[in-house]
Amino acid sequence: MSELKGACIIGQSGGPTSVINASAYGVIRAALDCPSITAVYGAAHGIKGVLDDKLYDMGQEDAGELKLLLNTPSSELGSCRYKIADPDKDDTDYKRILEIFKKYDVRYFFYNGGNDSMDTCNKISKYMQKVGYECRIMGVPKTIDNDLFGTDHCPGFASAAKYIATSCAEVYKDARVYDTGMVTVIEIMGRHAGWLAGAAALAGVVGCAPDLVYLPEVDFDMDQFLADVDRIYKEKGNCIAAVSEGIHYADGSFVSEAKTSATDGFGHAQLGGLAALLANMVKERTGAKVRGIELSLLQRCGAHVASRTDIDESFLAGKTAVETAVAGETDKMVGFECTRESGKYSCRTKLFDLSQVANFEKKVPLEWINKEGNGVTQAYIDYALPLIQGAAEAPTEQGLPRFARLRKVLAK
Amino acid sequence: MSELKGACIIGQSGGPTSVINASAYGVIRAALDCPSITAVYGAAHGIKGVLDDKLYDMGQEDAGELKLLLNTPSSELGSCRYKIADPDKDDTDYKRILEIFKKYDVRYFFYNGGNDSMDTCNKISKYMQKVGYECRIMGVPKTIDNDLFGTDHCPGFASAAKYIATSCAEVYKDARVYDTGMVTVIEIMGRHAGWLAGAAALAGVVGCAPDLVYLPEVDFDMDQFLADVDRIYKEKGNCIAAVSEGIHYADGSFVSEAKTSATDGFGHAQLGGLAALLANMVKERTGAKVRGIELSLLQRCGAHVASRTDIDESFLAGKTAVETAVAGETDKMVGFECTRESGKYSCRTKLFDLSQVANFEKKVPLEWINKEGNGVTQAYIDYALPLIQGAAEAPTEQGLPRFARLRKVLAK
Repeated sequence: MSELKGACIIGQSGGPTSVINASAYGVIRAALDCPSITAVYGAAHGIKGVLDDKLYDMGQEDAGELKLLLNTPSSELGSCRYKIADPDKDDTDYKRILEIFKKYDVRYFFYNGGNDSMDTCNKISKYMQKVGYECRIMGVPKTIDNDLFGTDHCPGFASAAKYIATSCAEVYKDARVYDTGMVTVIEIMGRHAGWLAGAAALAGVVGCAPDLVYLPEVDFDMDQFLADVDRIYKEKGNCIAAVSEGIHYADGSFVSEAKTSATDGFGHAQLGGLAALLANMVKERTGAKVRGIELSLLQRCGAHVASRTDIDESFLAGKTAVETAVAGETDKMVGFECTRESGKYSCRTKLFDLSQVANFEKKVPLEWINKEGNGVTQAYIDYALPLIQGAAEAPTEQGLPRFARLRKVLAK
Repeated sequence: MSELKGACIIGQSGGPTSVINASAYGVIRAALDCPSITAVYGAAHGIKGVLDDKLYDMGQEDAGELKLLLNTPSSELGSCRYKIADPDKDDTDYKRILEIFKKYDVRYFFYNGGNDSMDTCNKISKYMQKVGYECRIMGVPKTIDNDLFGTDHCPGFASAAKYIATSCAEVYKDARVYDTGMVTVIEIMGRHAGWLAGAAALAGVVGCAPDLVYLPEVDFDMDQFLADVDRIYKEKGNCIAAVSEGIHYADGSFVSEAKTSATDGFGHAQLGGLAALLANMVKERTGAKVRGIELSLLQRCGAHVASRTDIDESFLAGKTAVETAVAGETDKMVGFECTRESGKYSCRTKLFDLSQVANFEKKVPLEWINKEGNGVTQAYIDYALPLIQGAAEAPTEQGLPRFARLRKVLAK
């Protein structure tokens, strides 16, 4: 493979995570250090920044500030949820992308995102091949949902999992402090896959397991849920249930969207989300004091408690994308291949075909969910626990997180 | 003052904090090390444990596990919200307490709590004096609400404030990631005082200030709030508002309890709390994408991000209670006297009369709130910022918090 000289673009897309910027930094740092790459551009708001000709010149940034990206949550370059058209139906966007690539002599495109982003990569790559523009395109995964195909796990999942497990352990202590009991419902992200909800069970490693964990991989039964809670509350005087936002009834309808007559005779949708809804149902059934807690955005931006393993691996994924692209690879996503033999975890990068990865959702294996459908098995714990090891050791300023402050100088 | 030999009881009461156990550890460690104190008992669930004769023998605990109390959130001995009667009206409880004190030869009583706990201390002390039972009684403050009279600040406030400021900084990054804007409403504890809501503004120190902060010290005006949010959203494309759960209209009614016709023609109370309610009001008014986030219990049990200053001071308050009691003091609460001259913070303990402290709520001074009533001034920042300094450096086990595991052996 001959050397390909030219500029590169890094873009970020989809919902952010605590460590997506660590991946971006992996790309940016490796690209700035690479002799084949003549300029490093960050696209403002992902592919939208390319279409709008809004590119930041990463060469203008202070090296120390760039390094702070390792501990800066959210997508520092900005994100988008722009769904690119099928090029066979409408190639307007692709023509524009080609125009921009030519304008800046872009020969490397790195896209940092989830399922949709891998699909975007794949489509752009196919188009560039079709029109004969030489360009290497690599996907750098991120998603707290952990649902990308092929890779052992996804950058971003572990830090969210660590936030969830830590918070669940702390709430476990708080929620049983009184002589009178309480039922606590903790709502966790994950619309279609239960990887994150399962992370609540990791708190069991330090003796603070939730009593019940519900994943969207199995159908939810409200009567069974209320019976489970009632039984545990009566036995122990307390009950903590962790639920995925994506739990649904057997007919596929989300519990969170269900009209309930339990609290409101007129069947109005509840405002406060699933945790509040379930907590209220429990209150009506058991008479217990209840508390609904929604981890909301906090779980995906809690960089102060990010997993060191996740930060390091996220950086590695970005760096590897650049190194392998420069070496000749294209149309690949950088994922991980891991072993956990005899409790020893090891992880190395592995390339996956973009066309294989795009638009496929990986769910928690059913055999990792207990037969009652209200908890995960040891296999899940063995899988996830190594990923949350190590402290973020994020820099602080006056006791608060010191995030990267980029200049964001527009490229000319 | 002659030496008073005998056992001591430490009890915890009211809503827990991230560092109330650091205070308990200060009491327990100092008492175990004190020659005048013959035994150290922890009351299960505060004064209820005394009434029920349920006392743990702290001498049976492992020293290393006890030390882990420094980083263990919630009240490890258990808490209660039991309101003791006025002894002039009903002295049943006091007779029982005297009986237990005599049974175990208790000569020192340390009570770790907020306003109500100081009141409990005060009443017990007056009763013991009346019946001529020699006993020294000291209050060890805790409250995330920071509303105790006299003391510069209260143990527990700073760690909650640090959690809030850290979370607000992280959400600031997350909530403006897309090219399309969002309005985020963050709900913070504090029914009557706005100390905690004000802490959201600390995120401004690292460039991540919320746009608007509403405290319960000033009346809330819904129209003005919606206009404020709308203006900022239009200007910046994003808006983050931090609100105290205790915000209320001019007539004193809580906004959180208000019937609103904006979302529900039937005027049903909303389930999901204030953040969801306000977010929905904003959505109707501005059409913006909205997100309501309630920090809920997380803010008071987030020990992993506790303030080192708070941990150290909380421990000191407990230790000082023992030392001063043994030296002859009684009927006092251990508080703090601090200076912040030229940006240099120093703190020393100071004793306050229990009768002065009990049942008085200290609020944020009105001159620390801006004239628009939607933010705090630099005076608030200068007051609170020194308190959140230093990292918790909490011990972990397999990547998760390692809390104290006490044996809790009942005293005979």
